[in-house]
Amino acid sequence: MGYTAAIAGASGYAGGELLRILLGHPSIEIGAVTAGGNAGSRLGEHQPHLAPLADRVLAETTPEVLAGHDVVFLALPHGRSAEIATALGDTALIVDCGADFRLTDADAWQRFYGSEHAGTWPYGLPELPGQREALTGARRVAVPGCHVTTATLALFPAIADGLASAEDLVVVAVTGTSGAGRSLKPHLLGSEIMGSVAPYGVGGVHRHNPEIVQNLSRVAGGPVTLSFTPVLAPMPRGILATCTARIAPGTDAAAVRAAYRRRFEAEPFVHLLPEGAWPTTGMTLGANTALVQVTVDEAAGRMVACAALDNLAKGTAGGAVQSANIALGLPETAGLPAAAVAP
Amino acid sequence: MGYTAAIAGASGYAGGELLRILLGHPSIEIGAVTAGGNAGSRLGEHQPHLAPLADRVLAETTPEVLAGHDVVFLALPHGRSAEIATALGDTALIVDCGADFRLTDADAWQRFYGSEHAGTWPYGLPELPGQREALTGARRVAVPGCHVTTATLALFPAIADGLASAEDLVVVAVTGTSGAGRSLKPHLLGSEIMGSVAPYGVGGVHRHNPEIVQNLSRVAGGPVTLSFTPVLAPMPRGILATCTARIAPGTDAAAVRAAYRRRFEAEPFVHLLPEGAWPTTGMTLGANTALVQVTVDEAAGRMVACAALDNLAKGTAGGAVQSANIALGLPETAGLPAAAVAP
Amino acid sequence: MGYTAAIAGASGYAGGELLRILLGHPSIEIGAVTAGGNAGSRLGEHQPHLAPLADRVLAETTPEVLAGHDVVFLALPHGRSAEIATALGDTALIVDCGADFRLTDADAWQRFYGSEHAGTWPYGLPELPGQREALTGARRVAVPGCHVTTATLALFPAIADGLASAEDLVVVAVTGTSGAGRSLKPHLLGSEIMGSVAPYGVGGVHRHNPEIVQNLSRVAGGPVTLSFTPVLAPMPRGILATCTARIAPGTDAAAVRAAYRRRFEAEPFVHLLPEGAWPTTGMTLGANTALVQVTVDEAAGRMVACAALDNLAKGTAGGAVQSANIALGLPETAGLPAAAVAP
Amino acid sequence: MGYTAAIAGASGYAGGELLRILLGHPSIEIGAVTAGGNAGSRLGEHQPHLAPLADRVLAETTPEVLAGHDVVFLALPHGRSAEIATALGDTALIVDCGADFRLTDADAWQRFYGSEHAGTWPYGLPELPGQREALTGARRVAVPGCHVTTATLALFPAIADGLASAEDLVVVAVTGTSGAGRSLKPHLLGSEIMGSVAPYGVGGVHRHNPEIVQNLSRVAGGPVTLSFTPVLAPMPRGILATCTARIAPGTDAAAVRAAYRRRFEAEPFVHLLPEGAWPTTGMTLGANTALVQVTVDEAAGRMVACAALDNLAKGTAGGAVQSANIALGLPETAGLPAAAVAP
Repeated sequence: MGYTAAIAGASGYAGGELLRILLGHPSIEIGAVTAGGNAGSRLGEHQPHLAPLADRVLAETTPEVLAGHDVVFLALPHGRSAEIATALGDTALIVDCGADFRLTDADAWQRFYGSEHAGTWPYGLPELPGQREALTGARRVAVPGCHVTTATLALFPAIADGLASAEDLVVVAVTGTSGAGRSLKPHLLGSEIMGSVAPYGVGGVHRHNPEIVQNLSRVAGGPVTLSFTPVLAPMPRGILATCTARIAPGTDAAAVRAAYRRRFEAEPFVHLLPEGAWPTTGMTLGANTALVQVTVDEAAGRMVACAALDNLAKGTAGGAVQSANIALGLPETAGLPAAAVAP
Repeated sequence: MGYTAAIAGASGYAGGELLRILLGHPSIEIGAVTAGGNAGSRLGEHQPHLAPLADRVLAETTPEVLAGHDVVFLALPHGRSAEIATALGDTALIVDCGADFRLTDADAWQRFYGSEHAGTWPYGLPELPGQREALTGARRVAVPGCHVTTATLALFPAIADGLASAEDLVVVAVTGTSGAGRSLKPHLLGSEIMGSVAPYGVGGVHRHNPEIVQNLSRVAGGPVTLSFTPVLAPMPRGILATCTARIAPGTDAAAVRAAYRRRFEAEPFVHLLPEGAWPTTGMTLGANTALVQVTVDEAAGRMVACAALDNLAKGTAGGAVQSANIALGLPETAGLPAAAVAP
Repeated sequence: MGYTAAIAGASGYAGGELLRILLGHPSIEIGAVTAGGNAGSRLGEHQPHLAPLADRVLAETTPEVLAGHDVVFLALPHGRSAEIATALGDTALIVDCGADFRLTDADAWQRFYGSEHAGTWPYGLPELPGQREALTGARRVAVPGCHVTTATLALFPAIADGLASAEDLVVVAVTGTSGAGRSLKPHLLGSEIMGSVAPYGVGGVHRHNPEIVQNLSRVAGGPVTLSFTPVLAPMPRGILATCTARIAPGTDAAAVRAAYRRRFEAEPFVHLLPEGAWPTTGMTLGANTALVQVTVDEAAGRMVACAALDNLAKGTAGGAVQSANIALGLPETAGLPAAAVAP
Repeated sequence: MGYTAAIAGASGYAGGELLRILLGHPSIEIGAVTAGGNAGSRLGEHQPHLAPLADRVLAETTPEVLAGHDVVFLALPHGRSAEIATALGDTALIVDCGADFRLTDADAWQRFYGSEHAGTWPYGLPELPGQREALTGARRVAVPGCHVTTATLALFPAIADGLASAEDLVVVAVTGTSGAGRSLKPHLLGSEIMGSVAPYGVGGVHRHNPEIVQNLSRVAGGPVTLSFTPVLAPMPRGILATCTARIAPGTDAAAVRAAYRRRFEAEPFVHLLPEGAWPTTGMTLGANTALVQVTVDEAAGRMVACAALDNLAKGTAGGAVQSANIALGLPETAGLPAAAVAP
């Protein structure tokens, strides 16, 4: 019943959020906390908001340090996970918040990441049809990209039920800055970001693009085409994806809402809002929730679905813990905040 | 050579921006400043950023007060302009920042505004083909909606040249809060907005919807359909419209860029950015500029164009002064800031 | 072991934060949720971030509805608490987040609040010397003002130990907007607040002024004089108080730090940061923590102490639950977040 | 009548603001624009908000490139100005936005900057008594630090008139992020700054400390002691200084206000607000204005003065151009924005 977890990459934003959530987990105890360049320093220097862990010292991220834990959460740059997984073998559940094992298509990996494909792990989005079962008892989990979770949840119910076409999808996702990590890049400076919104990765080149297509292909009865544009907004956290798809003939808003209600009514963390209420990212700060609303614009021939979540919580660390709970046979909701911090 | 201008609605955001711009205008002098409920108070109470005008007292917005000026700028709620225009007759150039005279289609007006259509005035978007000429010597100007200017500039070159289809357009426009004016509504409180983004008017119900369609219909050789979703973001000013359209067969990014370059190379205020650079709203704060970039996502079969501008400047007050300059025969750029305040 | 709590004022910001914290409380169950004008509506309309409570319907705030709970939390405008307390009598622990029962000096109350003094309740700041004991078993708690908690924690250790003078204190406290509640006032609009900081209540007129003086008078061996200026900053939550006091002759930074260490080392929620590290409000978002640092500026003859906390958490609702825990004989830390949400 | 100006450090924030202001200057034309590491690139890459200058190429910052202009504005890191000034000799007015020549006290320089003192130039704060005259015809100008201009304007009238003591001054200055320049430091990342305020340089160690003391010593009839704490706030621009000083016996608010009115009534850019109105930084964005208010807190025995300005405008580049105007014999207000961009 009591598990221990190591967190690799504990000085970054995703690592910090894993620690914050695990501090409240009833069945998982925080073991080793590791880092790369920050190894040897106090965790409190990098995550001063985690008062109970302030005096922990960061160890080096090595298989030896990570070994001996029941769960290992990896919050590392791309390309590091395979080696650690090989070294640890089957002794631990490994939950990778990075991209290495998300894609099934080696060509797509090569095209978007420019390196050799490392393989594919069970995909950590339990709300996708069949996926909760696939995660049960798994020893490896690939946590989805944050934009991917948002867009997938917003679109899959309509596509799975044939109410909207998976061809010619258009997604514009407004996101906070923490998704870029603690990178020292000029466009991430507060001076540049506050008071401004900025598109990036425009034209189908963002790495979350093929992953959204992969998820929706699973539920669509045919090809998927997608125009995806992320937009950076002046807030630390949150993603709001506005997703449109061509509706099938005869589909109306009531039918679409019914499909979403059916898919999500038993979900602990995905909530279809009451009719007329639209999600905002502020409603999800720090919670493992995703909020969804959908309508049909008949003049445009399109449905419009919006989903909001916290990119570090449900979009990364919360989703990771949710999948770990399933894999370990714990209650899926264990330790996961169901309420957000607002205003 | 010297003109006088009255500003009606001078205590609001659009009125304040008109005053800020006119303070720097070489040929237009600020005359009467009027308000509704705020009449009788010092302008400095409402617009403390306009130090040179702080001691001006707001008069009541009546035709009598507005009469006797060469130009009258109206920054009023919908439904007030017709009466003032009738009273002033042809004695003044009237530039209406409100919606009353923007639409040509009385049915669309009725559907989106729920009142009787007041008529149609020359449309204040000089960058639209033929429109600069239509404004020359005009005595009435209807200033476009701020979302409308943004989306129209982002899309019309491709549509006018047949490089993209006007059917199945998708526009998602991220906007600052000042577009909503100084309205005391809970969702506009700082506590609610900071750290959050929120869609609104989803599903084709926003009032700028028919106006975007109207503009693009002028340049398209056929029907226009549009899915338009505005998203409120935590910044006071700025609109970034991400606009996608299905590309015509055989169209590539170079062809689309060439079309935009051609349309905008002689424009004083609309700038196609260098290849690979994408506009942000921060690049436009306080300036009368609109920045545009465009590319083609071949896998998606869509072009993606982004335009950024300051909703109060080029999107309202700056656009109003630009059209007034043309109507009065002044240099089009007179008094208009070409550089923004950044960071 | 299981207690029930009613929350009056559940549709406001303080009420929402009480609910968020109580959702994670192991020994207190949420009972009635009540409101004034919002009675009859779903809680989800006002607190959409509290997904688990979205379908609760707000009852009217009356003694009848609040009766029958072990604890009643009041998050009401001033002047409402006395009547409710009288009606409920000794049947419930009443924890008042409002100001009515904070001050001991009826004259000060009259001067700053302009109404008749209602009385004085046990004061909910357990970190003040002797106060934890005073709260044990209490049936009434007056939760301190948010600025008051911040300034008191930053200053009292030095004053209590005679290391700094309580005369001529200067406090400047930068605060987020949620402290003003969900009030529809122009200066609280997002458009006005983002990108701007604004002093208010300048010159000793803020209502938290006499309460800070009252707390520091308890620990000082003489008179207290205070210059207190709050400053509104563009963030939803958080207070950073910069507090200076004249140092006693011979006092240096090491002596002052030692005094703070002694006072806070056993405190579960107040943390003296490592030397050289200064608190920020971002380190406390959503947590019940207060972070403190102190140094001495010898050239100025003053010590400078900074304290940061979340005005809605430790500053209001968290402090309220902490005091309720003590009053009920529960572990003081029960249900209270010790880690913050960052970045 | 027509002057040319070179701008050294044109790819940084201060350099960008100099260019923005000079674009609107009637008598100064922009000549060479230079940079260090960014030499050779288009200005538009670094200052995309300056559309009219986008295609200018940055030259290397060398005396040769800067030579031949009437005015040379230096926006460089410390330590570079002396060499350039020596090379250019008396051929140009040199206006240094850096710190090298601000301090008169070589010891203070050594203590706060840790290098050898380069000397002292005429000080670019024309509002200080006698300083406008000192700048007339000057060939060198040292532009004050941004915090220094703010605190000096807030305090000097009371001190000069003996209404407040210059001993035991306390200043807390809330500032936006652009004052730190485009430095890639973790604490300047948007993720860290948004939603948070952070003190820095606490305890009398900030480099603007001795400069504030220097200015106030000029007007005081005796020693100056100062506790100065800057606080970083989530906004790109703006400084709000809250300044308190012990009042002289018998002084009241009316007397203090009268002193400020007298000092500032003829000033083109410093405005004492109407009684009861307090300055905010948002009222000054992009303008060369400083807004001031003052009151007396009799219970505290202190006056409280607040001043707000835009750190890049009046606080740096605007102040630089104002002093250049005076030095060149141009109208002091030439080219300087008197109205701000708000909201």
